[in-house]
Amino acid sequence: MKVKDQFTVVPEGTITTPKGFRAGGLHCGLKKTNRFDLGVIVCEVPAQAAGVYTLNAFQAAPLRVTQESVAVDGKLQAMLVNSGNANACTGQQGEDDARGMRSAAAKAFGVAEHLVGVTSTGVIGELLPMPKVLSGIEKLPTQVKADGGEDFCQAILTTDLVQKMTCVRLTVGGKTVHIAGAAKGSGMIHPNMATMLGFMTTDANIESAQLQKLLNGVTDSTFNMITVDGDTSTNDMVVVMASGLADNDILTPEHPDWEAFEAGFKYVGEYLAKAIARDGEGATKLIEVSVLGAASQEAARAIAKTVIGSSLVKTACFGADANWGRIIAAVGRSGQPVNTETVDIRLGDNVVLEQSRPVKFDEERAADYLKGELVQIVVNLNMGSESATAWGCDLTYDYVRINAAYRT
Amino acid sequence: MKVKDQFTVVPEGTITTPKGFRAGGLHCGLKKTNRFDLGVIVCEVPAQAAGVYTLNAFQAAPLRVTQESVAVDGKLQAMLVNSGNANACTGQQGEDDARGMRSAAAKAFGVAEHLVGVTSTGVIGELLPMPKVLSGIEKLPTQVKADGGEDFCQAILTTDLVQKMTCVRLTVGGKTVHIAGAAKGSGMIHPNMATMLGFMTTDANIESAQLQKLLNGVTDSTFNMITVDGDTSTNDMVVVMASGLADNDILTPEHPDWEAFEAGFKYVGEYLAKAIARDGEGATKLIEVSVLGAASQEAARAIAKTVIGSSLVKTACFGADANWGRIIAAVGRSGQPVNTETVDIRLGDNVVLEQSRPVKFDEERAADYLKGELVQIVVNLNMGSESATAWGCDLTYDYVRINAAYRT
Repeated sequence: MKVKDQFTVVPEGTITTPKGFRAGGLHCGLKKTNRFDLGVIVCEVPAQAAGVYTLNAFQAAPLRVTQESVAVDGKLQAMLVNSGNANACTGQQGEDDARGMRSAAAKAFGVAEHLVGVTSTGVIGELLPMPKVLSGIEKLPTQVKADGGEDFCQAILTTDLVQKMTCVRLTVGGKTVHIAGAAKGSGMIHPNMATMLGFMTTDANIESAQLQKLLNGVTDSTFNMITVDGDTSTNDMVVVMASGLADNDILTPEHPDWEAFEAGFKYVGEYLAKAIARDGEGATKLIEVSVLGAASQEAARAIAKTVIGSSLVKTACFGADANWGRIIAAVGRSGQPVNTETVDIRLGDNVVLEQSRPVKFDEERAADYLKGELVQIVVNLNMGSESATAWGCDLTYDYVRINAAYRT
Repeated sequence: MKVKDQFTVVPEGTITTPKGFRAGGLHCGLKKTNRFDLGVIVCEVPAQAAGVYTLNAFQAAPLRVTQESVAVDGKLQAMLVNSGNANACTGQQGEDDARGMRSAAAKAFGVAEHLVGVTSTGVIGELLPMPKVLSGIEKLPTQVKADGGEDFCQAILTTDLVQKMTCVRLTVGGKTVHIAGAAKGSGMIHPNMATMLGFMTTDANIESAQLQKLLNGVTDSTFNMITVDGDTSTNDMVVVMASGLADNDILTPEHPDWEAFEAGFKYVGEYLAKAIARDGEGATKLIEVSVLGAASQEAARAIAKTVIGSSLVKTACFGADANWGRIIAAVGRSGQPVNTETVDIRLGDNVVLEQSRPVKFDEERAADYLKGELVQIVVNLNMGSESATAWGCDLTYDYVRINAAYRT
């Protein structure tokens, strides 16, 4: 992504770069290997908070508990996460366990219960081994440090291969403000409100309600525009915490630096969303589908998501096969209005369809392009001026291998 | 499927078993190997006809030509098919080519143009090599024979591994009536009106309009309830031809044997739909998802289709992993109303969830069950009395292999 003049990417930045945040992680025994499976972000002060949550009807217990916490007065001071077990579809016991985690974390970090959020990711339908979790939470305060962003990132991963984090810096009313993010997500990823675990921190001075509006808008064009396999998880959420310690004049849409803040915020969201798509289970490449010239924003998004979600498009990208017929077939089944006479398609700069007519193109050159790590598919409907972009990944042998034996 | 008393399956029956039909196939050069790629069904008399067609916006040229033919007076006498090239997204030239095929077939078989239907399946976006096709059509009459059903079946296959055909016999007003069907379809299969190529023949005496109504209803509960990969093709259709040569009193819903005819017709549709799902690209097994206790038929169908379409459910079945969390996650993202406290799930007779609570089950026994060639997933919502069944297949390494290199 082209970085705007409005903000600067902080190369080694993590979620603890914004003022007031520390983080940490440890292995408490939920994962079979010795990898970290419990993590926390802690703020010096109660932070203004906002969140978006999965639309799956079977929302996991910890998400309900986090929503309860934020509802009290729009603040969070500690955000606790475990990986290896989703605590989803676990009934009343699961609710009790999520509350038990919250209460133990409140005690460990000396904050009120309603200032603690909890979330879980991993296998669905198994009860948490609470003795392990509670003993881990007790030890967590000693693991929390100012440079603990990477440890936290480790603790939230499941089938992810890489850590996903970024941080930007900008100036708000003369004060330096940071916005940072970390995320996990590799499978069961499909746009429907939040579709993974995302954590954003900022030291900006901004109120919870404003933060929520900003998060909703950014989620629609970033986290909701990625798919790995079309499956929306029971557990996914994005939470933002703002410490206010940058000491800027409070941020509202009327603030002269609001646009810069919004741009930085969106950069972090889009960076994390693309990182999740690129690290999709078994993926060898990031696929970016841009739909231009749509009659409405809704149509542009729906078509981009249909193309990025097509198993046939995904396998063709894996095989470096410029099979644009699969792209147009996906456009055609999107349920959106399309003019079947005016569609252009290009793969990078390889034009393959113009005004819905096949163009003779250099197959070898197109195949070389498709072998790269980034495939950009551009569909121009030539019907209007709206556009949207969606991100996903190729469908590979490794996706099947990983998912044919996830639990066993 | 349990065969009802109302009809009998004819073990060696093909689409030429109903009186009046002959068929044939040959290799004209569209497929790289020597396999048949051009086929035809011919009726002694103009047959009453009905059809359902893909809802993909980019409907292929031959489908439009077939619809035009049927529109003239609801009859077809010859149905021509080529495989290896879909003649889709081929612009005006594609339209002209489809018309050229129809006109050549009309001449070769000595029937009026509007009594000829044409259809194509294969790669999208490439022009048909018309000299090869036309020379094939010229030779076709010599290949047409009374026992040519299997040759026809060969000619319509693309990535299919097996031929798909069946035939039933029943009695209508004392006369023997046959209903037969043949189909192809292995990839780009997803419920949305017709989702593959299907051909049904019958010697019953029934009018086109009645046949169309019957076909619409049966399509909703059979061809529209299968998915291989979620992609709806540009070319898919089901056509029925009724010769009337069984000489029965004309069939209407008031006829005392209507129910038996409908049951036989549905059997043929369901048989072909399941055969397509079982032969899904790379599949090792048939998956059947039944949703019971739904509040509405629409909800039952939508949930069954969401579960059968889940890549995670499909890979879990491939890996024989009783990961019911993926099933409930799919139920939850279906967009349909569900009571999150009342869901039961079983895999065959392995109960894994009761009233939304995990049940301790014998993992080894469940894994053994999932290793079989038929996996039945039963979801009871316990909310009402409506039910629906959908069919699909597992997602395997071979699906990826086949689709990563389809064209090349």
